[in-house]
Amino acid sequence: MALAVGIERQTVETPRSGLERLSDLACEDLKAVNAIILDRMQSEVAMIPQLAGHIIAAGGKRLRPMLTLASAHLCDYRGRRHLALAACVEFIHTATLLHDDVVDESDLRRGLATANALWGNKSSVLVGDFLFSRAFQLMVADGSLDVLRILSNASAVIAEGEVLQLVTSNDTETTEESYLRVISDKTAALFSAACRIGAVVAERPAAEEAALERYGRCFGIAFQLVDDVLDYSARQAELGKAIGDDFREGKITLPVVLAFQRGDEAERAFWRRCLEDLEQDDKDLEHALGLLARHRVLDDCMERARRFGAEARTGLELFAESSARRALTDVVDFCIDRAY
Amino acid sequence: MALAVGIERQTVETPRSGLERLSDLACEDLKAVNAIILDRMQSEVAMIPQLAGHIIAAGGKRLRPMLTLASAHLCDYRGRRHLALAACVEFIHTATLLHDDVVDESDLRRGLATANALWGNKSSVLVGDFLFSRAFQLMVADGSLDVLRILSNASAVIAEGEVLQLVTSNDTETTEESYLRVISDKTAALFSAACRIGAVVAERPAAEEAALERYGRCFGIAFQLVDDVLDYSARQAELGKAIGDDFREGKITLPVVLAFQRGDEAERAFWRRCLEDLEQDDKDLEHALGLLARHRVLDDCMERARRFGAEARTGLELFAESSARRALTDVVDFCIDRAY
Repeated sequence: MALAVGIERQTVETPRSGLERLSDLACEDLKAVNAIILDRMQSEVAMIPQLAGHIIAAGGKRLRPMLTLASAHLCDYRGRRHLALAACVEFIHTATLLHDDVVDESDLRRGLATANALWGNKSSVLVGDFLFSRAFQLMVADGSLDVLRILSNASAVIAEGEVLQLVTSNDTETTEESYLRVISDKTAALFSAACRIGAVVAERPAAEEAALERYGRCFGIAFQLVDDVLDYSARQAELGKAIGDDFREGKITLPVVLAFQRGDEAERAFWRRCLEDLEQDDKDLEHALGLLARHRVLDDCMERARRFGAEARTGLELFAESSARRALTDVVDFCIDRAY
Repeated sequence: MALAVGIERQTVETPRSGLERLSDLACEDLKAVNAIILDRMQSEVAMIPQLAGHIIAAGGKRLRPMLTLASAHLCDYRGRRHLALAACVEFIHTATLLHDDVVDESDLRRGLATANALWGNKSSVLVGDFLFSRAFQLMVADGSLDVLRILSNASAVIAEGEVLQLVTSNDTETTEESYLRVISDKTAALFSAACRIGAVVAERPAAEEAALERYGRCFGIAFQLVDDVLDYSARQAELGKAIGDDFREGKITLPVVLAFQRGDEAERAFWRRCLEDLEQDDKDLEHALGLLARHRVLDDCMERARRFGAEARTGLELFAESSARRALTDVVDFCIDRAY
């Protein structure tokens, strides 16, 4: 009972989210990282810092570079190398976002507005290329071939995941396995690389590197699962946040995969019309939400997210208790709980 | 006289172009490079080798990787590292081509057909990213931080040049200086990096690295100047090759820069209408060719190309006479002479 009260009080005294705790831990570091980002996105070609600044400012959370910083802390790293490498992780993430914004003629016809609306496809691609190159310049300046190997491998895997997503886009027959491969590649690969390089700069044994790789990979999968649930979440809608973007784009995420599998013929025809043929009217999103509720699909997606979250936390058990470990644990819980 | 006859006979016996001589020199190497390219463009995601294979096969000449191979030969290199690095240069070039194919809505409206017509913008971007990542994986496997530095710097400069080209696109007030900056960045940076790494793998002194850097940079500028002249060349038109692509896209190349500077008000209004407002009819290209002829613009562009070609050859004087040096000299002449 005393313990329960104690815990209760502690919770009241520190009402900070997992993400805030991670930010607290990495606060000074993060300022240094932001300064590096600002410095290295400069170019004589004025459009580059303009466009890059827009998306990097909008990116906001800096979750991925914070993972590098916290992982380095977890490994008791005392140097400065993690700062430039965290910036480099953010550059790769930003380049991916910019390239993800590129649209095809079909999207233009459907009138999708993306961040590239301001500058156009071509600028998004070329500034993304610039940031990607900058990331490699930062790694070269750091001088570790291990880091270069980890992040060039991650970049190749991310590109594969993005292409696979494009191929399975609008395909309602996509399996859960194929969906997991996509998010493991396009999202979790950078999470795991970001964590792993924290152990590399600290020159920790392979087992710790592998543990951080596992943490990052499982967290990344959980993060993307939750992200995909949120796009259909009634709670999000209540909070006035936009939902249904994936639905309108015909993106096949796990909620749709499960609802399609569990649906009868009429329901499957509905999903096909909306997501393959992209023939949608105003009432369709509401109907889709009803089908997801009927088949308890979002609960099942969250159950999977929690399972990956638990596996992520298990990855941290190798490390002694510390504020870094608590922050890395809490941020997983925070990312999963944001779905409620 | 005997000498002249000798030279004459030799020319008759070996009627091979500079490009063919370079290919001859690097023939076995080039087979090995092609095998590496084929192997490393594979992915479980089937669309990647399909799209990459299409553009790599279409790319054809392999001029840039041949520069790496010939530079390594020039430096008496006896190992195998130049092969994977030549493949890596071709991957970077191919990624650039794919990203250059990305079009904006405005281009789509004007009905421009590019290589991406088959697969769409998004695929071009993502497969380009994959090849770019593969290039860095190849460099990491090679293990030289010097090579990584040279090629990541080149990649950043290429992206800057492409953005600058985009910004100056449709701007008839573009200066010759600004045009030279664009082609120096977007084209010559990779030529010079490709040559330079030949000296790096051979572990030659800095002076030789700098000489090859200079050769590549000047050759790259000459190459692009000629390429831009060819797009307005009557000779090309006679040969049944397409001309006027740059004109239709509103791309500002040196012929236009000079013609605009030398034109009267009516002529400037013509260039503005065609290249800024993109209002063109069937007779406009013919009129443009007439203006270029009146101001002797193409001759002047070729004069500049020859000057850069001469400077490229000067870069080679540091090296002893050899078949590699002859091939590198001849390919410059060949690329300039193809304009006639």
